[in-house]
Amino acid sequence: MSATVWPAAPAFDEALDVRLQQAIDLKTKPPGSLGRLEALARQIGLIRNTLTPDLARPAMLVFAADHGIADAGVSRFPAEVTVQMVHNFLRGGAAINVFARQHGMQLEVINSGVRGTLDVVDERLVNIPVAAGTHNFLERPAMTLVQAEQALAGGRARVRHHAALGSTVIGCGEMGIANTSSAACLMSRLCDMPIAACTGRGTGLDDAGLQRKQAILERALARAPQAHAPLDVLTEFGGFEIAMMAGAYIEAAARRMVILVDGFIASAALLVAEALSPGVVRYCVFSHCSDERGHRRMLEHFGAMPLLALDLRLGEGSGAALAWPLVQSAACMLNEMATFADAGISRDSDDHRNDHDNGAQR
Amino acid sequence: MSATVWPAAPAFDEALDVRLQQAIDLKTKPPGSLGRLEALARQIGLIRNTLTPDLARPAMLVFAADHGIADAGVSRFPAEVTVQMVHNFLRGGAAINVFARQHGMQLEVINSGVRGTLDVVDERLVNIPVAAGTHNFLERPAMTLVQAEQALAGGRARVRHHAALGSTVIGCGEMGIANTSSAACLMSRLCDMPIAACTGRGTGLDDAGLQRKQAILERALARAPQAHAPLDVLTEFGGFEIAMMAGAYIEAAARRMVILVDGFIASAALLVAEALSPGVVRYCVFSHCSDERGHRRMLEHFGAMPLLALDLRLGEGSGAALAWPLVQSAACMLNEMATFADAGISRDSDDHRNDHDNGAQR
Repeated sequence: MSATVWPAAPAFDEALDVRLQQAIDLKTKPPGSLGRLEALARQIGLIRNTLTPDLARPAMLVFAADHGIADAGVSRFPAEVTVQMVHNFLRGGAAINVFARQHGMQLEVINSGVRGTLDVVDERLVNIPVAAGTHNFLERPAMTLVQAEQALAGGRARVRHHAALGSTVIGCGEMGIANTSSAACLMSRLCDMPIAACTGRGTGLDDAGLQRKQAILERALARAPQAHAPLDVLTEFGGFEIAMMAGAYIEAAARRMVILVDGFIASAALLVAEALSPGVVRYCVFSHCSDERGHRRMLEHFGAMPLLALDLRLGEGSGAALAWPLVQSAACMLNEMATFADAGISRDSDDHRNDHDNGAQR
Repeated sequence: MSATVWPAAPAFDEALDVRLQQAIDLKTKPPGSLGRLEALARQIGLIRNTLTPDLARPAMLVFAADHGIADAGVSRFPAEVTVQMVHNFLRGGAAINVFARQHGMQLEVINSGVRGTLDVVDERLVNIPVAAGTHNFLERPAMTLVQAEQALAGGRARVRHHAALGSTVIGCGEMGIANTSSAACLMSRLCDMPIAACTGRGTGLDDAGLQRKQAILERALARAPQAHAPLDVLTEFGGFEIAMMAGAYIEAAARRMVILVDGFIASAALLVAEALSPGVVRYCVFSHCSDERGHRRMLEHFGAMPLLALDLRLGEGSGAALAWPLVQSAACMLNEMATFADAGISRDSDDHRNDHDNGAQR
């Protein structure tokens, strides 16, 4: 097992929670009328440990890596698409570019371990590959323990970098052909669920493809029946991008940053992070419920209710970027809305019994 | 009945719909992987009648008016809150100010007919009151037919104004103590549903308050059993802000603008607009499902699936403003994402049978 000591996610100040609710209830709106945005505002306040959270410099880190299991025929797309999409990210043409640009998020692409080389000089590319893709975990562990720890540390370092530049919000996205297979195996072991409940169509497998994928993953899991501890599961079935995301989550929670969780693969990485550093999940805003089978049950595992349900299944951090404006809205509500007192507005009739003779009628 | 000829909502070009889907399928993402954002992009393209919709200058029009029915004790807040909130809008402290500012939406507040005077000089305030609130529709029609037509025309004029300034997107919000009562009666008559299914807690009535409100609305509806035609229903039970919103929708659809529909009251106004000018609803993006009882069934009536479900029940256009970034994202996706050909990316294996000897394995 690992010698690394994982930072614990800091505790929340429960007294602050009461004060946040009071602050929200003083805003010029009927109590509770902003619905789930109010709970989100409280969570953001608790994460940032303030009544007036400033969500500065949101950063979107897109981790890319290849998966040996792709060679077993679990995806509809060939493995070379991973590198091709990294180039697309760097040219600005992918969905995550569009949405990050729209919302002024800092976008960074991390080569966590793609096949082939990325001979590109681009300030948005961080070249820290652990290896040229993982091994095929149908045959052997995806990575070594040293590699898993290197990847976790790499993700943590990226978050430290952005925190130093002033970021208070981190979204993580991923690209890696076949990485729903890795995520499904992580989910099966870390949530103790049958692989059938965890296996989905990924980029669009048909029924036969889905059946084949599931049979392959069943065999892969049977190869390493002993792996249940988080680092063992990560080593056996993980991916370099998934491990880096897990590290990023751990570091972000330790630094009281708001974490935007994307879809199925991003949530699988969170399973690892939460197992290594319990409490990380409280720093997470779950952006959306993916169309990928398994994600809904993974969200239930976390007790999470995501902000969006738009049948997305793209990855790249796209759902996290789409949900970001809602997170920002919740913080703006806390920071910018007037109170009843500021605005000189009458409260509801319960507060006005003495002001109105016929208050009971209202 | 009215002599006004209502403009029909322009038809969509169904051939363009096919081309929009083709354009979306060429983008660098697995087919369908952006889920409901793809259908939204198609709708936006059809509304704007182009493959590359530019959603310039989004405008949020907040219509405020008072309701005579407030005197019957149907709301938790006193009627003077309507004017107090208008002042709050003008000072920038309300939720809709915060969200419109966040998203760069042009915010305009329209005095459609509040009680009392608004002696404010503010470029964001448009003072076109039809009267100082409606009559109490428990006792007599809320307004005259002339007033209803004046209000509809007023809403249309505001949209013409913003269209002339370059707006292609219109959101409508409202403020008016007791206007859920008006909206519930409109829904009951125009959707032919029992008032119990249409009556909700508004700004937060308790069980007893809800029962009293429902009984009052039952009596009000019984006063005018003949009113079923849209203008009759509007005249009997409507509000000036609701009538102006209906006019705004009709004008916006006629001008091929994207309409952002807010919650329960905004949707009740759409019932009127759609009845007067069939097809308006196709120009509408339904932003959210409100927590107000009745909204879900009203959305079903429209066959609408809203973008958000955050248990909001604030009004002011707040839900429409919160959903706006998703609408913008759908348009950006169409306009900015690279195609597979642009990016030199391999398509899925079905497209690559000849390129890969072992394509069947992928």
